[in-house]
Amino acid sequence: MADKAKDNQFVKEIADINKDFPQWYTDVVLKTELVDYGPVKGTMVIRPYGYEIWEHLQHEIDTRFKKTGHKNAYFPLFIPSSFLEKEKEHVEGFAPEVAVVTHGGGKELTEPLIVRPTSETIICYMYQQWVKTYKDLPVLINQWANVVRWEKTTRPFLRTSEFLWQEGHTLHRTEEEAREEALKMLGVYIDVMNNVLAIDVLSGLKTDKERFAGAVETYSIEAMMLDGKALQSGTSHYLGQNFSHSFEITYVDADGQIKTPFQTSWGVSTRLIGALIMAHGDERGLRLPPKVAPIQVVIVPIAAHKGGVIEKCEEIKKTLEDAGVRVHIDDRDQTAGYKFNDWEMKGVPCRMEVGPRDIENNQVMIVRRDTHEKFAMPITGLEKSIPEVLDKITKTMFEQSKEHLHANIVRCENVDELKEAVDNGKFVEAMWCGDEKCEDEIKAKTSATSRVMPFDQTPCGDKCVCCGKKGIKRIYFAKAY
Amino acid sequence: MADKAKDNQFVKEIADINKDFPQWYTDVVLKTELVDYGPVKGTMVIRPYGYEIWEHLQHEIDTRFKKTGHKNAYFPLFIPSSFLEKEKEHVEGFAPEVAVVTHGGGKELTEPLIVRPTSETIICYMYQQWVKTYKDLPVLINQWANVVRWEKTTRPFLRTSEFLWQEGHTLHRTEEEAREEALKMLGVYIDVMNNVLAIDVLSGLKTDKERFAGAVETYSIEAMMLDGKALQSGTSHYLGQNFSHSFEITYVDADGQIKTPFQTSWGVSTRLIGALIMAHGDERGLRLPPKVAPIQVVIVPIAAHKGGVIEKCEEIKKTLEDAGVRVHIDDRDQTAGYKFNDWEMKGVPCRMEVGPRDIENNQVMIVRRDTHEKFAMPITGLEKSIPEVLDKITKTMFEQSKEHLHANIVRCENVDELKEAVDNGKFVEAMWCGDEKCEDEIKAKTSATSRVMPFDQTPCGDKCVCCGKKGIKRIYFAKAY
Repeated sequence: MADKAKDNQFVKEIADINKDFPQWYTDVVLKTELVDYGPVKGTMVIRPYGYEIWEHLQHEIDTRFKKTGHKNAYFPLFIPSSFLEKEKEHVEGFAPEVAVVTHGGGKELTEPLIVRPTSETIICYMYQQWVKTYKDLPVLINQWANVVRWEKTTRPFLRTSEFLWQEGHTLHRTEEEAREEALKMLGVYIDVMNNVLAIDVLSGLKTDKERFAGAVETYSIEAMMLDGKALQSGTSHYLGQNFSHSFEITYVDADGQIKTPFQTSWGVSTRLIGALIMAHGDERGLRLPPKVAPIQVVIVPIAAHKGGVIEKCEEIKKTLEDAGVRVHIDDRDQTAGYKFNDWEMKGVPCRMEVGPRDIENNQVMIVRRDTHEKFAMPITGLEKSIPEVLDKITKTMFEQSKEHLHANIVRCENVDELKEAVDNGKFVEAMWCGDEKCEDEIKAKTSATSRVMPFDQTPCGDKCVCCGKKGIKRIYFAKAY
Repeated sequence: MADKAKDNQFVKEIADINKDFPQWYTDVVLKTELVDYGPVKGTMVIRPYGYEIWEHLQHEIDTRFKKTGHKNAYFPLFIPSSFLEKEKEHVEGFAPEVAVVTHGGGKELTEPLIVRPTSETIICYMYQQWVKTYKDLPVLINQWANVVRWEKTTRPFLRTSEFLWQEGHTLHRTEEEAREEALKMLGVYIDVMNNVLAIDVLSGLKTDKERFAGAVETYSIEAMMLDGKALQSGTSHYLGQNFSHSFEITYVDADGQIKTPFQTSWGVSTRLIGALIMAHGDERGLRLPPKVAPIQVVIVPIAAHKGGVIEKCEEIKKTLEDAGVRVHIDDRDQTAGYKFNDWEMKGVPCRMEVGPRDIENNQVMIVRRDTHEKFAMPITGLEKSIPEVLDKITKTMFEQSKEHLHANIVRCENVDELKEAVDNGKFVEAMWCGDEKCEDEIKAKTSATSRVMPFDQTPCGDKCVCCGKKGIKRIYFAKAY
């Protein structure tokens, strides 16, 4: 009972997830040492425990990019300010939030430099020089980089003035091929969300109002956080020939004609770490999807002073590491209860308890972070059974996410219903007339914004949720981060 | 003979390495598409073929960092300008070459921000908050990041206003442990130079004049380029308590006393790509060390139109890829001679020719890029024999580098000898009195700078090479990049 009291006390170090979700988020990201605030307002320091999540996520994403024929490259951080102005919509979208370098090497610069908020312009400037004939197409390049956007309201991972991301930038001979590419990369993102981060998402087309500045079409994936708000988790843009025209990219086609290529860009960022925290957390803290967890299995020795316990833990660790599992033995001088709470808060997917009696019985005790199930498992064959447990955890977490998403989508017929729904943490499915004025009105009255128009456009009604005129688009609305 | 003429013509696209080494370098890096110039003076674009070298190199380095207990993290790009001023030597060293952000989000900032030239200051600011007791030590953190230094004279990879690097920053309880760490990481760099990049290096201590701004001691590895000039390829600094004092980092030790930790930092950068180009290249172009080569084996089908040739190439490719070898089949519509030259210029370590007669004999022809040796190899067992060839190439390239280095070190007794030696592309070994005035005089008269004082301080004479007074330090001088 003493242990139990201590447990509760420990849990109290983070705010109650059901009463104050924003404070819970802040407590969790700081106390599990994922992140810290940087000295400059709006910046974050990604600490080792958070950065390792990013490393595993990067690896999963990068492998998929390479399998789909993309190569990585690196373009400069500084963009001449004149570049930004070449694409009209682009400069309108980004100029208000750029950081500007005016001095270098002790002198004032003749042209101010923009710290990249995104790299379409500088990359197009290079592509213009590299692409000469149709043989140079497609260009399939990705960049892993830091970008800077001067945001007014910031929160670690979700919105920070500097963040890490990848940005793909491709050029194609035909519109069809470029459109295919934009959708293909959206598919890669959905795959990563579902199978790596265990998060179900809605996907589809953004409205013109919510489009990327300079794109013809923006596709997006939208995840539902535990409070029912949406988090835009990745976007893929079909850019048409907008940037190609602005930067005068042309090529000689097989028929000898000079033509203009079609373009895409697509990106995901460290924001995904915010997504997994807010999609999977619980009252005890983080729940990390196994594929990105820095520690997948934590071994807690029970009665560690007894002969053979630590040795057996080390032996199991080695066996599991050889099988590709990330293992940590917690041999700190603390009570088991303290350790259990600590690793639960840190979201380790699988806890293994190894005590003298377990060893006698040639077994270990396993506790799953996702379901709290506790069960014995034979030591023999752990190199197979543990990876299976980790896979099950990923699948269960995905099912939980899927259920949460679909249980919280409400069909609405008017703005009052919509407001009530989003105020109660729901996503709203509705029909829309296609007029931006209705989007604006909904936002003004409910704080909800349009998220995506799903690919399946089977009507779910006939009238616009706002003006009552003919509804021509099936669409989701939600409050969003 | 026609083919031969074409070969020569092709080779002529790059300058003669023996007549104009700087132009050869520029030609090679641009024509093999490793790099391109960015739009802002002094910046570079690392193209996919160059970036993939960096990815393999990163992987080799990062694996070694993790094995030695280090974790990665990410700190902000922007540093408040007041931070830089906290360490007197540090600000003197870096202030003249920083880029400064003065505007963000459309407004002038109250305090200008420095774009990081290195991250000691911002990292110390965070460590000050994180470290409380001896249990928090050692702190072993590394960062992979871009940094900016406003350089006057720039060359791709060697010196650019923005480059990619890693910077390790560690904190320790004792001076001894910190000094050990600085040397351990120097050892990691030597290992990478020798066994990954196949480059022999000199290592040792920098003179006070050449020390990192803010360090107590700087260790360095120095590689000899083909023109006999030195390239400082990596540095490891024992920082003592300089930054810890400036940033007021303290901890409560086991004895209850408040103490100040000891610190190190160490880094290598994309400059290493410049090192491998200038250490291994030849009149035909690049020679890439197998461990970082994006393509380790290029398969050139001979009489590819004949039935079964392409199929056999694909089969071999799959076998090798399963064995972890990076393979490319060149099925372009070009002559074999064109392809041979192209891949030689691009530095692919191993060429494999597969023709109908080879297939009949169950063999392939192998040509090594390092030695130009050509020999037949049975198709059976290629998954074992090719990795062996690649290992041999690494070893041979290292032996060549070692021989080149040691054949071009000259012992000198006075400044005239020293000048003649460095003018003839030699490194000079000499004794030095320890007075900075002599270093300055040597630099003024010969353009050579002190490189390192080797760990083996067995005297190689008794008089200072410059002033003739008692020589107390064995030291290397060279012209340097």
